Amino acid sequence: MQNVKKLGRQTWLFSKEIRILGSAVAVGPLEGQGPLGKEFDHIHSDNYASQNSWEKAERTMMRDAADSALSKSSLAKDQIDVMLAGDLLNQIITSNYTAHELSIPFLGLFGACSTSMEGLALAAALVDSGFAQYALTGCSSHNSTAERQFRYPTEYGGQKPPYAQWTVTGAGAAVVGEGPYGPKITHATIGKVIDLGIKDPFDMGTAMAPAAVDTIKTHFQDLERGPHDYDLIVTGDLGRVGYAILKDILADQGYNMTPVYNDCGIMIYSADQDVFSGGSGCACSAVVTYSHIVNGLNKGKYSRVLVVATGALFSPVSFQQGESIPCIAHGVVLEGGR
Amino acid sequence: MQNVKKLGRQTWLFSKEIRILGSAVAVGPLEGQGPLGKEFDHIHSDNYASQNSWEKAERTMMRDAADSALSKSSLAKDQIDVMLAGDLLNQIITSNYTAHELSIPFLGLFGACSTSMEGLALAAALVDSGFAQYALTGCSSHNSTAERQFRYPTEYGGQKPPYAQWTVTGAGAAVVGEGPYGPKITHATIGKVIDLGIKDPFDMGTAMAPAAVDTIKTHFQDLERGPHDYDLIVTGDLGRVGYAILKDILADQGYNMTPVYNDCGIMIYSADQDVFSGGSGCACSAVVTYSHIVNGLNKGKYSRVLVVATGALFSPVSFQQGESIPCIAHGVVLEGGR
Repeated sequence: MQNVKKLGRQTWLFSKEIRILGSAVAVGPLEGQGPLGKEFDHIHSDNYASQNSWEKAERTMMRDAADSALSKSSLAKDQIDVMLAGDLLNQIITSNYTAHELSIPFLGLFGACSTSMEGLALAAALVDSGFAQYALTGCSSHNSTAERQFRYPTEYGGQKPPYAQWTVTGAGAAVVGEGPYGPKITHATIGKVIDLGIKDPFDMGTAMAPAAVDTIKTHFQDLERGPHDYDLIVTGDLGRVGYAILKDILADQGYNMTPVYNDCGIMIYSADQDVFSGGSGCACSAVVTYSHIVNGLNKGKYSRVLVVATGALFSPVSFQQGESIPCIAHGVVLEGGR
Repeated sequence: MQNVKKLGRQTWLFSKEIRILGSAVAVGPLEGQGPLGKEFDHIHSDNYASQNSWEKAERTMMRDAADSALSKSSLAKDQIDVMLAGDLLNQIITSNYTAHELSIPFLGLFGACSTSMEGLALAAALVDSGFAQYALTGCSSHNSTAERQFRYPTEYGGQKPPYAQWTVTGAGAAVVGEGPYGPKITHATIGKVIDLGIKDPFDMGTAMAPAAVDTIKTHFQDLERGPHDYDLIVTGDLGRVGYAILKDILADQGYNMTPVYNDCGIMIYSADQDVFSGGSGCACSAVVTYSHIVNGLNKGKYSRVLVVATGALFSPVSFQQGESIPCIAHGVVLEGGR
């Protein structure tokens, strides 16, 4: 049935052979020292990435990732019809300036740390429907730019509780198009905003877990699938706290996630790296997906993976005004590379 | 040719009867007193809109606009498959909280003041391709929330140069779907980020005009059209300064815009309202398009309109770090209501 594009209200079905034709990631030193470091394309030896501000370092990493993704796809930037990108910085300046450098028609996104899969889902939709032949999508975060924007001045050295998370420094990008090789993008499930009233901006894992649960459960129901239909289901950045909560809630609802479930925020750092409950930030799911997961699909380690990127949609202003933290999660299914 | 979805690199062609099934706007008192006031659905008598913060007032206006757009389209919120929205506030909190209230699957956008047409273009693309049956799109801005975020504390009363613009307080929303009635969305042209080096954050009109020129010229070339093919071409919020610049540049390139060209930032206020060079903000083009232009198309006053929403993609941080202002413009073609 070529014309069925939607299953239920929230799940998109891509009917063409839509694939990740090339993907790449750039990271800072801490991420490079982590367990996935050997799979990363660019590892900068310091957080400034040879720039004079952290904001420019973040931009350098997004450009690194985009350039290498283009190169791996054997496409030039003027062959890309549209770029869909976002980041954590106010007014998504990393993405705006990178889109200017690349001179690709641009649609800016904001989904906090869900942006990676928001962009991949929309890129696949635009290619599947013929509005673009090739699309570039990406996102970035930087520990030091995020820290001073969302929390305290970086000089202040404020302490954090153990359930806090560490914003990943890095960027990931992917070129999406029809082609004979590369992980196939088969479905996307678009999330709703879920807010169960968590107000502690350090406790992102607890805030975001219910949004991931909602999207995963909807995905299973729309596709009549369960955890056993996947080799791997990853959430974006719930960390150890949110990971445990998600497993518990889904177990209560009859889904045993244990055999297949992991979290990008746990995967990206070693247990002995001092990152509290794990990684977070837009780059967390993008870096893991566009390196380790794409590689695993291309090499046959994985045959079907569900990536659920999770975002906490609060701002310092909404926090100061006493609001709770609305969260969202978008899921994309990737299948084996050949 | 049902399968042609793209003309040139940047212009999308919608092949189904994709229409604005209902649209509505909400504004503050100053906008209500302007020349288009009688066409607005909700006019709040004060900028707080009966809330205890300007941020909540902005959210109230987006909710007003969304609720009335849904009501006019005779659709309930649970019949809408996806909401595409954005605003000027950091982390687009107006849109995030409104999407939570409405419980519609949500894709967050950031295109500064180009968000109105970014959202309408993507909504039309998702409906045209079958990923959504109905989509809701909208955006908002509020003079007082934007002022304290982008410029000075509102208590400070800082003076502005005459070429500055006044952020519109309001919101606009539209329901997009296939249907027998309502303005038809026929094409969209997705803009590139253009940055000619303007660094004065008060001079948005000068900064944004080249982006609007680029999108309009690309649109004309992709469709082999010119100004005479439209009853009305509006830019989002160039104000009087940018309006004059755009006309001059396009005249130099052989396009006489004078007979059909206007700017939403000029249209929304009277000449005797104290708004410097004119209106700006996400709401500017959304409020004018989703009231006056939709009404004009439905009533036969206009038969074909090109709306080019213009956005300045800078942030206070990028300004403080000495960066110039990258800008973007997205265009959408609307045709007569029947």
